[in-house]
Amino acid sequence: MTTHTAPGHLSVSACWQHLRTTDIGRLAVLVEGDVDIFPVNYTVDHGCIIVRTAGGTKLSWALAGPPVAFETDGHDSDERRFWSVVLKGRAEELTDLDERLSAGDLPLMPRHGGPKHRFLRIVPGTVTGRRFESAQHEHWHDPLAEARGRTVR
Amino acid sequence: MTTHTAPGHLSVSACWQHLRTTDIGRLAVLVEGDVDIFPVNYTVDHGCIIVRTAGGTKLSWALAGPPVAFETDGHDSDERRFWSVVLKGRAEELTDLDERLSAGDLPLMPRHGGPKHRFLRIVPGTVTGRRFESAQHEHWHDPLAEARGRTVR
Repeated sequence: MTTHTAPGHLSVSACWQHLRTTDIGRLAVLVEGDVDIFPVNYTVDHGCIIVRTAGGTKLSWALAGPPVAFETDGHDSDERRFWSVVLKGRAEELTDLDERLSAGDLPLMPRHGGPKHRFLRIVPGTVTGRRFESAQHEHWHDPLAEARGRTVR
Repeated sequence: MTTHTAPGHLSVSACWQHLRTTDIGRLAVLVEGDVDIFPVNYTVDHGCIIVRTAGGTKLSWALAGPPVAFETDGHDSDERRFWSVVLKGRAEELTDLDERLSAGDLPLMPRHGGPKHRFLRIVPGTVTGRRFESAQHEHWHDPLAEARGRTVR
C-alpha cells in the first residue's frame, strides 16, 4: 500500500492516529430527506467507530438510511495546525450480547448523566483527513482589498 | 416570547451566545443523495452564520440541496459541561459586492493559507442547543454490569 498523500491530506494511518486522540465527534445522518447532525461520544475499536447512545429517532435513521458521515477534529499540540478527519460508512447497532459486553468495557463516557445503553458501530467505507495551517491575517491574499480601499463606507 | 426550555436544552438566546464563543463549526450537506460533513470557519453576523470557503463541489451542493445543518460545540469554562448548538437552514452565497465587502471585514480566519474568497450565509430555520454534564464513570447506571460480572472472559 502506498502512503502518498496530497499536501495537507492525511494518510489513512494518520487519520486513525488522530481519531484515537479525542472522544467527541459529530455524526451526520439523513432524517426524512434532510441532513441532521449531532455530537457523539465515541471510541475506536477494531478499525471501527463505536458510539454509545440513548437511541431514539436519530439512531433509527442512522441505521435505516444511507451511509452516515462522522467527523472529528482538533488542534495539533502546538496549536498552529488544525486537523479534521471524516469517516463515511454504514451504521449498525451492536445487538449481540457479547459485543455489547465488550463495548461496555470501552472508554465511552457519555456526556450527560442519563443512561446510554445502545451502541452504534460505524463500519468505515472511506476515511479521509486534512490538516490546515492556521493562517495569519497579514498573509492573506485578498482580492477585495483594493476595491475596499476605494469604497467610501 | 417565552424562554422556557427543557432541562439541558439551551434557549435560543443562549444558543446564539454560544455560537459567538468559537469560530469552528461543521457543515453537513447532502451530496448526490449521501450526507457529507466538513469543518468550516465561521462567524455570526446579523443573526446568520457566515462561512468563508474556497468553494468547490460541496459549496455547490450546499446551495442546491435541501437545508444544511451546522453544528458547533465546546466546553464551558470550568470544563465540566459540554455544549452543542445545531442550526438548520438555507444556504446562500453572498454575491453582492457590498455584501462581500462587509463579509471581508468579518473575523473569518481560514484554516489554511490558500485564498478562500467565497462566502456562504446560512439563514437559520431552527436553532437548538444542548448542554451535557460530563458524567463520572462511577455514577453510571449500567444494566450490563451484573451480566458482565457473571461472564468468564
